[in-house]
Amino acid sequence: MLKPSRGALQGVKIIDLSRVLAGPFCTMMLADLGADVIKVEIPKRGDDSRQFPPFYKGESVYYINLNRNKRSITLNLKDPRGKKLFKKLVEKADVVIENFSPGTMDRLGVGYEALKKVNPRIIFASISGFGQYGPYRKRPGYDLIGQAMGGIMSITGWPDSPPTRTGTAIADVLAGMFCAIGILSAIKSREKSGVGQSVDVSLVDSVFTAIENVSEMYLVDGEVPGRIGNRYEFVYPYDTFKASDGWIAIGIGNDSLWRRFCQAIDREDLIEDERCLSNAKRVENHVFVKDIVEEWTVHRTVDEAYNYLLEKKVPSAPVLSIDQIVADPHIAEARQMVLEMMQPGLGMLKVIGNPIKLDKTPASIRTPAPSLGEHTGEVLEMLGLDRSEILELKEAEVI
Amino acid sequence: MLKPSRGALQGVKIIDLSRVLAGPFCTMMLADLGADVIKVEIPKRGDDSRQFPPFYKGESVYYINLNRNKRSITLNLKDPRGKKLFKKLVEKADVVIENFSPGTMDRLGVGYEALKKVNPRIIFASISGFGQYGPYRKRPGYDLIGQAMGGIMSITGWPDSPPTRTGTAIADVLAGMFCAIGILSAIKSREKSGVGQSVDVSLVDSVFTAIENVSEMYLVDGEVPGRIGNRYEFVYPYDTFKASDGWIAIGIGNDSLWRRFCQAIDREDLIEDERCLSNAKRVENHVFVKDIVEEWTVHRTVDEAYNYLLEKKVPSAPVLSIDQIVADPHIAEARQMVLEMMQPGLGMLKVIGNPIKLDKTPASIRTPAPSLGEHTGEVLEMLGLDRSEILELKEAEVI
Repeated sequence: MLKPSRGALQGVKIIDLSRVLAGPFCTMMLADLGADVIKVEIPKRGDDSRQFPPFYKGESVYYINLNRNKRSITLNLKDPRGKKLFKKLVEKADVVIENFSPGTMDRLGVGYEALKKVNPRIIFASISGFGQYGPYRKRPGYDLIGQAMGGIMSITGWPDSPPTRTGTAIADVLAGMFCAIGILSAIKSREKSGVGQSVDVSLVDSVFTAIENVSEMYLVDGEVPGRIGNRYEFVYPYDTFKASDGWIAIGIGNDSLWRRFCQAIDREDLIEDERCLSNAKRVENHVFVKDIVEEWTVHRTVDEAYNYLLEKKVPSAPVLSIDQIVADPHIAEARQMVLEMMQPGLGMLKVIGNPIKLDKTPASIRTPAPSLGEHTGEVLEMLGLDRSEILELKEAEVI
Repeated sequence: MLKPSRGALQGVKIIDLSRVLAGPFCTMMLADLGADVIKVEIPKRGDDSRQFPPFYKGESVYYINLNRNKRSITLNLKDPRGKKLFKKLVEKADVVIENFSPGTMDRLGVGYEALKKVNPRIIFASISGFGQYGPYRKRPGYDLIGQAMGGIMSITGWPDSPPTRTGTAIADVLAGMFCAIGILSAIKSREKSGVGQSVDVSLVDSVFTAIENVSEMYLVDGEVPGRIGNRYEFVYPYDTFKASDGWIAIGIGNDSLWRRFCQAIDREDLIEDERCLSNAKRVENHVFVKDIVEEWTVHRTVDEAYNYLLEKKVPSAPVLSIDQIVADPHIAEARQMVLEMMQPGLGMLKVIGNPIKLDKTPASIRTPAPSLGEHTGEVLEMLGLDRSEILELKEAEVI
């Protein structure tokens, strides 16, 4: 049995047809926060990401991490009996979420137009590469394509490097997050209006939104933003620097911090130096300033350098690798961003925590990721089917 | 006068003490969706970002884009009269959001403990570099530091490049988005419980969450993920390739797409080639496969290549630069991701649209960004102050 959620979203019922990453990331957030997410998977095959690495004892930890706290039922939406059961589920639900290519749900007869007749309160959320309308709506959309067309690649990387993707599936993640905001807003709106609505989020729009003021630079100045490595356009030294055993970030956002930094590294002579007298000057002469800072950092370890600068009240931080983060006493432990979860058949497994810290109804991991169709029986019984009907549906491969 | 919102979040009142990017991005999303956001700024100075480039006719478009749909009042929270007025505002509000360094609000006497006595229904949201608790809570936290310590830099870039930041302030953006999800969840929770709660989101936690299954790779296999350019660990060719006039993305996620691609580029000979027979083989021989693909792309323009591939049902897209996106008929126009806004004193200005497309209560731009303290009078009158009291407070620099 599922433990009842005491989370913020307790009582919110979500029927989740989404696969792989953007949709499942959205519903992971909502499930962590207490929503009851019923994941609808294809009989025998399930979410494609069940086959995605990394594997532990033959099971996909990619799938497990993203689908904790959810229930899984199998349902063939191409079969009329499957469609009928799906609509029964929708009658009792608050939200349907899907990330098929636009038009697929309509073709299956379970698009928003059909479902709102079944339940006018339903919120129908869709994530796709390009959105539900517009000339490119039918184009295939993946994270790679969202990053390519949303502009983030064109501004990530080095002056001499090709356009560079962000090392995670940031388009999928951003779209999942915007979709969560849209769903929760539609739930709030429904309180007054009594009716649901559709939520349409695309990977490309999401990435473009996330680059925010970089686009304004072009819209205002007409200069196309390029790739400038780790520095930021308008402030310096606010960058990463080479230390003897890695890289450190130093963020000097104003002139008084610059003076403090010069004192800290015993270079008071620079305080009066024309070439770095103001932020504007330091931005102009960023190559010169970078050399000065690295002259100091390169002879120190990352730990020595950033600890010393923090002591001197100069903003600084190590550039951490994944192994360092998952062992970090603040991030992994105090903030509980790495958690242990008991996954049946696999034992204790480390998964990623939730970054939204609510004090009264905290996000939590209540149940492991489901095996394929693990909850088909209990959910169909809830819909009023008896065991012989369920068995019959199973034999007919409807579930 | 403000036009009344018909957005999804109509009626949600937010008192916004946040500055620069993470908090203002969060409240921009909520304001676009209909919330009434009252931005509280420091008298005479205002949000630091009012001084941030790019500038148009002397005004910061950075500030303007992020603060449309909000009202601005000035209030000195260090003055007892300012504190008292602030608490009166909080009595009538649903949400307070701030991104001071942890402890600042308490020191000012307006932390969550104080405010929940004034209004037990208040939701108190905080964004910071490291969160409200844990050993690093007092460290300075900026986007650069969130990217450095959240792991994203360590996995972005090329095998021969340093750790690379994402070209936008992605730590700020992600934290603002997670905070919005937390606020909306707390609002939903309050419906039942009748009480508010605190929402604590950090830049570092947010970035770490966004790299999701990359961390699982380490947790499962013990191998530290590095920088691999634009390809993805487990699928190939799913990467960017050089065309004669730029770069294109091609996403071939399975063997049947690979065969289709080989036919499309007239290289049926490769279908039987041992070195690229399966996805696993192509991942292993990704350098060889990349050369094959680029042999074909490099002789074609970006437009020729991706249009041809799309016709052949091979997922493909151009890598777009910012100037191309803001002129794109799908992204900028059909999806309304670039909008015109009338900004007093500046005329029509292009700003970024909202990626959350709701069909019944769409996000919208209803009012331009406020001048500093533009709405102080109307808001204080709403609190019951008369003109002479307001004048007195102004002379005392409380407002």
